Amino acid sequence: MMDQKVYPFSAGNRTMSDLLGGKGANLAEMATLGIPVPDGFTITTRVCQEYLRTGGLTDDLLEEIDKAIIDLEKKIGKSFGDPNNPLLVSVRSGAKFSMPGMMETVLNVGMSPEVAATLEKITGDSRFAWDSYRRFIEMFGKTVCEIPSESFAKVAEPLIKAAGGKTIADLDGPGLKAAGDAFIQVVEKHTGLPFPFDARSQLTRAIEAVFHSWNSERAQLYRRRERISADLGTAVNVQAMVFGNIGETSGTGVCFTRDPGSGAPGAYGDYLPRAQGEDVVAGIRNAFPLTHLGVVNPEAFAELNRIMALLEDHYRDMCDIEFTVEQGKLWILQTRVGKRTAEAAFKIATQLVDEGSITMDQALTRVNGEQLVQLMFPQFDKASAPKELTRGIAASPGAAVGSVVFDPRDAADQALAGKKVILVRRETNPDDLVGMVAAQGILTARGGKTSHAAVVARGMGRPAVCGTESIEVNVDEKFFTCGDVRVHEGDLISIDGTTGAVFLGEVAVVPSVVTEYVQGIVDPGAATSTALIKSIHRIITHADSVRRMSVRANADTPEDAEIARRMGAQGIGLTRTEHMFLGDRRVLVETLVLATTDEERTEVLAEMEKLQFSDFVGILRAMTGLPVTIRLLDPPLHEFLTDQASLAVDIALTQERGEAVDERKLALNRAVNRLHESNPMMGLRGVRLGVLIPDLFSMQVRALTRAALHVRAQGYDPQPEIMIPLVASQRELLYFRSSLETEVARVLENAGEQMHISIGSMIETPRAAITAAKLADYSDFFSFGTNDLTQLTWAFSRDDVESSFLPRYLDLELLPFSPFESLDQDGVGLLVKIACDEVRTVNPEMKLGVCGEHGGDPRSIDFFHHVGLDYVSCSPFRVPVARLEAGRAAVSDHATTGSA
Amino acid sequence: MMDQKVYPFSAGNRTMSDLLGGKGANLAEMATLGIPVPDGFTITTRVCQEYLRTGGLTDDLLEEIDKAIIDLEKKIGKSFGDPNNPLLVSVRSGAKFSMPGMMETVLNVGMSPEVAATLEKITGDSRFAWDSYRRFIEMFGKTVCEIPSESFAKVAEPLIKAAGGKTIADLDGPGLKAAGDAFIQVVEKHTGLPFPFDARSQLTRAIEAVFHSWNSERAQLYRRRERISADLGTAVNVQAMVFGNIGETSGTGVCFTRDPGSGAPGAYGDYLPRAQGEDVVAGIRNAFPLTHLGVVNPEAFAELNRIMALLEDHYRDMCDIEFTVEQGKLWILQTRVGKRTAEAAFKIATQLVDEGSITMDQALTRVNGEQLVQLMFPQFDKASAPKELTRGIAASPGAAVGSVVFDPRDAADQALAGKKVILVRRETNPDDLVGMVAAQGILTARGGKTSHAAVVARGMGRPAVCGTESIEVNVDEKFFTCGDVRVHEGDLISIDGTTGAVFLGEVAVVPSVVTEYVQGIVDPGAATSTALIKSIHRIITHADSVRRMSVRANADTPEDAEIARRMGAQGIGLTRTEHMFLGDRRVLVETLVLATTDEERTEVLAEMEKLQFSDFVGILRAMTGLPVTIRLLDPPLHEFLTDQASLAVDIALTQERGEAVDERKLALNRAVNRLHESNPMMGLRGVRLGVLIPDLFSMQVRALTRAALHVRAQGYDPQPEIMIPLVASQRELLYFRSSLETEVARVLENAGEQMHISIGSMIETPRAAITAAKLADYSDFFSFGTNDLTQLTWAFSRDDVESSFLPRYLDLELLPFSPFESLDQDGVGLLVKIACDEVRTVNPEMKLGVCGEHGGDPRSIDFFHHVGLDYVSCSPFRVPVARLEAGRAAVSDHATTGSA
Repeated sequence: MMDQKVYPFSAGNRTMSDLLGGKGANLAEMATLGIPVPDGFTITTRVCQEYLRTGGLTDDLLEEIDKAIIDLEKKIGKSFGDPNNPLLVSVRSGAKFSMPGMMETVLNVGMSPEVAATLEKITGDSRFAWDSYRRFIEMFGKTVCEIPSESFAKVAEPLIKAAGGKTIADLDGPGLKAAGDAFIQVVEKHTGLPFPFDARSQLTRAIEAVFHSWNSERAQLYRRRERISADLGTAVNVQAMVFGNIGETSGTGVCFTRDPGSGAPGAYGDYLPRAQGEDVVAGIRNAFPLTHLGVVNPEAFAELNRIMALLEDHYRDMCDIEFTVEQGKLWILQTRVGKRTAEAAFKIATQLVDEGSITMDQALTRVNGEQLVQLMFPQFDKASAPKELTRGIAASPGAAVGSVVFDPRDAADQALAGKKVILVRRETNPDDLVGMVAAQGILTARGGKTSHAAVVARGMGRPAVCGTESIEVNVDEKFFTCGDVRVHEGDLISIDGTTGAVFLGEVAVVPSVVTEYVQGIVDPGAATSTALIKSIHRIITHADSVRRMSVRANADTPEDAEIARRMGAQGIGLTRTEHMFLGDRRVLVETLVLATTDEERTEVLAEMEKLQFSDFVGILRAMTGLPVTIRLLDPPLHEFLTDQASLAVDIALTQERGEAVDERKLALNRAVNRLHESNPMMGLRGVRLGVLIPDLFSMQVRALTRAALHVRAQGYDPQPEIMIPLVASQRELLYFRSSLETEVARVLENAGEQMHISIGSMIETPRAAITAAKLADYSDFFSFGTNDLTQLTWAFSRDDVESSFLPRYLDLELLPFSPFESLDQDGVGLLVKIACDEVRTVNPEMKLGVCGEHGGDPRSIDFFHHVGLDYVSCSPFRVPVARLEAGRAAVSDHATTGSA
Repeated sequence: MMDQKVYPFSAGNRTMSDLLGGKGANLAEMATLGIPVPDGFTITTRVCQEYLRTGGLTDDLLEEIDKAIIDLEKKIGKSFGDPNNPLLVSVRSGAKFSMPGMMETVLNVGMSPEVAATLEKITGDSRFAWDSYRRFIEMFGKTVCEIPSESFAKVAEPLIKAAGGKTIADLDGPGLKAAGDAFIQVVEKHTGLPFPFDARSQLTRAIEAVFHSWNSERAQLYRRRERISADLGTAVNVQAMVFGNIGETSGTGVCFTRDPGSGAPGAYGDYLPRAQGEDVVAGIRNAFPLTHLGVVNPEAFAELNRIMALLEDHYRDMCDIEFTVEQGKLWILQTRVGKRTAEAAFKIATQLVDEGSITMDQALTRVNGEQLVQLMFPQFDKASAPKELTRGIAASPGAAVGSVVFDPRDAADQALAGKKVILVRRETNPDDLVGMVAAQGILTARGGKTSHAAVVARGMGRPAVCGTESIEVNVDEKFFTCGDVRVHEGDLISIDGTTGAVFLGEVAVVPSVVTEYVQGIVDPGAATSTALIKSIHRIITHADSVRRMSVRANADTPEDAEIARRMGAQGIGLTRTEHMFLGDRRVLVETLVLATTDEERTEVLAEMEKLQFSDFVGILRAMTGLPVTIRLLDPPLHEFLTDQASLAVDIALTQERGEAVDERKLALNRAVNRLHESNPMMGLRGVRLGVLIPDLFSMQVRALTRAALHVRAQGYDPQPEIMIPLVASQRELLYFRSSLETEVARVLENAGEQMHISIGSMIETPRAAITAAKLADYSDFFSFGTNDLTQLTWAFSRDDVESSFLPRYLDLELLPFSPFESLDQDGVGLLVKIACDEVRTVNPEMKLGVCGEHGGDPRSIDFFHHVGLDYVSCSPFRVPVARLEAGRAAVSDHATTGSA
């Protein structure tokens, strides 16, 4: 069949998660392995996609479902909707990527008063039968008819009270029947229609409700956080019901084949007698440890252990299993590769290698860079057992301690005075930026992972806890409350942006031992080294051995270069020389701009050259033997000068006071006005400055060449590369490159030395990307500047985007994530790919790299590997992440990941 | 042969101008037609390209040249370098596109004292023989050895004086020999080497000199002005010499087959007895009218007339012919399709049609939009016979009259006071912008067509005359001189940016009759209508009948829409609604931004809606029956607010004075700071504003829909289209489009009416271009915004580019032209092409247009036709140009242009 819409479990397997969702694919796999899975079938994700487009189920589909039900009836020997021999089914969502609890489930579909009566007769368990009845009505009402929970609670209350109970579980069979009947009234009153006791109509409405729940608000939020595409849709699994709530010989549980928290080997889980799955998830009653099953039903426990071993062996990974025991018999309802903490991920991966279950290549695919990042943040000292006040959304990772401030301007003032502060707001807006920059961390009562506060905090690398619904912020009176606790301005608090925890008082922060390891401070081979460090070391070492891309760092100072080298950087991919003209040296640029005679110019350039020479000497020495890419001056000159508005105010005020304005200030004002640009990002910068002010750039090249010769004479091995920013056309590249070559040749000739210094171009304008094959004639290497390329491709100014429309765009799911955090592969990535393909056509050997911040982003690194870049360059701290991800990308083509 | 380097005239034809240059291809064509052309051969442009890359002539080439010389010797029966039977040759440049006088020529190659003596013997004309000798030495010295003219003039002077003459032409044979010998000393002294009398060595050095001259400064300037690619290179024509300077039966001349100035039929030209071609070009002696040849040599004259008729018939166009009569015999040295004035171009084209020589399709290819533009500018009234003071470079077309001002700030002040001024500067720089904007026109003493003044003036549409070398500007004392004339500040002058003429006093300006015709004021069918108007009318009417693309106009007011309609616009391609919020209405936007309550918001939006409603009513009425594309608000809101710096100064000064600052001003200051963006071009504008401030855009759509219904009720046929600016992704387009559709539907429902209003997207971000196929799902049409697309593709901010680096880039030939004037086809055009191709793949019927200013640029229009756009939209004044060019583009695929 061209477009099969319904797959019985026997027709699928675990590779089909695109079509059947993760749950459906794994149910099919287990059925094939002979594991006791209640029979059923899966409706594909493609049906969901179509449903969401058209809003209806097609006749074709209904026909296929009917056929599948008839097949199921034959296998089970029961009949759907037959009051005498009833088949009941569950209807569950199951997307490609697990979204636990985010979508809807309807159990006991096929129920009616007659069916419940038959169940009572068959099982002899009146409470079970009518509880199933009551549960179905309630679930159908909430999920399909979208009736609020309270409506049901309200009508149940008098019944419970009359029975002298506290919860609905205290009712007996007749009580539960009465509750179910009362719930039917609620539904009928709400919908204005009779309750549908026709089994097939229940089924189709339940299926529609599951599809519908793909776009529920919480599902959308979850997807955005997990960067799951909104287009995928969910599959629906229809499965014969088994009951964990028939008498004392029944029960339900969840187990893991290893500890998902610590990674310790051995089964781990919970068992709840006389219960259905939803009771476990809801945590209504306290569960027993898994071993309890061994006590009450040794056969089922042995069978479960056998299945756990079988599944772990089959999936070659730690599995998460849901099971039910129905009147003594074990049924497996679901399995998947289990979620785990970052620490467990590394430890389990190497355990499995040691057990001969997977290869090191596979181990590499079991961990990721984000997990490594999590382990590298400083953490609160757990040994100090801090008292957690509350918990919000972990919005921007890291630990921060400071005294509470409510007003952003106060935060800025206090920070300036050297005080560590935590900015606490109901929510933030662009006006709060000044305080957010100044604070150690940010705590808000409202807003999720994509709120303004969260986006900005992540952009700045500030820890943040957002959406802490349990706190009430009173800005005017400068305190916030959390339950009975009142926290005043000036009180110390600690926030953990990695977990979302908020603590009262100062919690001690300990540096991460993982960071100490990647910096070379902790020796992974030492006897005292932890299992975690040994695991990480083995996996990163393996990543280094398999990756094709090399990893460089962006570093502007000798100190950063040294850190990068310790972190494993194989060179510098970007040295921003403009950073060398900030601070005290700003005045040099000002002097250059204001120079009116050749002598003044020559003098200030000579002074600059002296400083640049020593900058370059330091960096080249630190990176001896490794390539160092020096980017020539990039930003517009006015960035080094005083701000236009403040200068205008200053001069106007001085004049108003009748005082004389300093001549230099007037000259500066003229220069600032002359150099002012409406859109400096697209203005006189990069290679254009080089064309207009060639002596400034000759100075840089001269300083670099001299520094390289100097360092070589000291016995080092300098490998400088010159990089030209903002190139847009072949002609300007050729022209400017020639002028640089002339300067390099002149220095070498004067020194009587030989040295090869390659000259390459950045690709950061869309024009450079689409004409890269032409630029290749005059470039020794290319480095993609994906920050600027993203700005220009989208027309997003990075300086403005976080304070203007990006948060709103993320909220509305108009963007799946910030294109400055992770590469927009469909747009910007397409330009990168076009450029790579074109360049490789004319010069297969051209060295290609990336030096935008995407060079340190896991999914971007994978993309860069696959378009064929030779290296990525990122901030020093991200180097270990990039090494790991480059290794993962390299094995992703051929390794069997073993996960479903 | 794979790569033939040398083509004898017999081997080429006129279609080979890429390879042989225009001159070489036409010489070959004439040879084939049996026209008496001195024999010779052509070295290809490809050889030149290689020479310019490598700097040398290859052995292969030298061998081919040798073979060609031997063939030539055989045909002519003379021998190159043989003193007894000498063959002399000319060596001339000849590029694909004519560059008259821009490159080098060396005549009489093969000359030596012995050869000259033989010539004397053969012709019996001693003066001729030694004049040829002297000319060769001088020409070789100047051209090949790069010796300044003065060096030769200096040694000739005493000889001329001794002979009692005034010019070198006054010398007799022996005197000319002495001059030649003295010139040899000059060359040998300058080069330090003996003068090369070896014929082959003279030839190769002359060839190299011609190649070299491709990159002379004047050639580069010319190419830039004419937009000729620097990569083409020139061919070299080596041709047997014929002499117009042997006795009285010889002479030389230039003729046209029709008058190139007025277009009048009948031959037109000059004849100069006893002279060589260079004498005609140099204008050293006064020439006779062509008919003089008929008097002195009726046979040659008849032959020339026969050949003129033959060539015009063959080329089916007016030809420009250079000829020489050698001892009574006529030789044709060169022909090409003749250059002509705009007026002549139109008139000749229709004459040729009437004569049955060409079709109307071909006539269309003989004129172009730039010529039409020239004819449309207001002109100075020639009838008033103004006295021309001097002439500079025609840098920006149009006529301007005003009083002279030297200081840009004075210019601004006087213009503000209602005075018309001409800004006169030595040269301009970005600081002068304020005065340039205020002036009627600009006159500078320095700088060419790509100088700052010229580029900026063209950008603003201000007439400008630049590089007027004959004037001296004294800014401090506020006057300029031109020879003896002194012009003071306040004196009236008139400048003609179309011709470069500068007049003293006020010259009357008359509107162009062509403009009156295209505006429908002059009836082309009237008996009084001029031949020019009749020609233009026939050609434009034909263009309308053949073009595939329709032509729309960009118009923001009912008045502009009416003008556009009269000019032939077939709809409005762009109505910029932001222009409707300037002037008095600016305060509405301010009020909206400052609104703090829903009531305030609703109130100001209601007021805006009232105004927008009447804006739209006017435009839709004016364009009844034609499509009107309304672009929703595009610019960032802060563009409507007070400037940040001036507001800051204002508030600071008020506070300094101890006065209270107005509350609204403070609120405005906060808003301005909040809305301030580093790069507004890439900021919160277009569709992003629509997402963040939906009610503002709903208001626009509501006003438009209501206006359309209102106008329809009045009996008009409104065809509104809504266009969404700055779209970058499918999701935002879908989201925003839905909100607009909802609003349209609501208005229609309330009115109980039906109307189709299509909704389309601009393509102006690179991302929209490369993902256009995805946007096509939710767009009814696309319009390329090539202004913004150019900004983003190049990272050129249009607001800044003319005041910063563009003039310098043009000077250095790093850009062939401003990409904002004419579409950058290799970069921005490639994105347009990618988008068109992708969109046509998914939807062949999608309507595609362009509304950037390139929509009115001739070569861009040709490009848009060829990528398959359905329409171009341009300013109303450009509509006739676009109609003409769209017609030319349509016939360019199949018409035989008949030109070489």
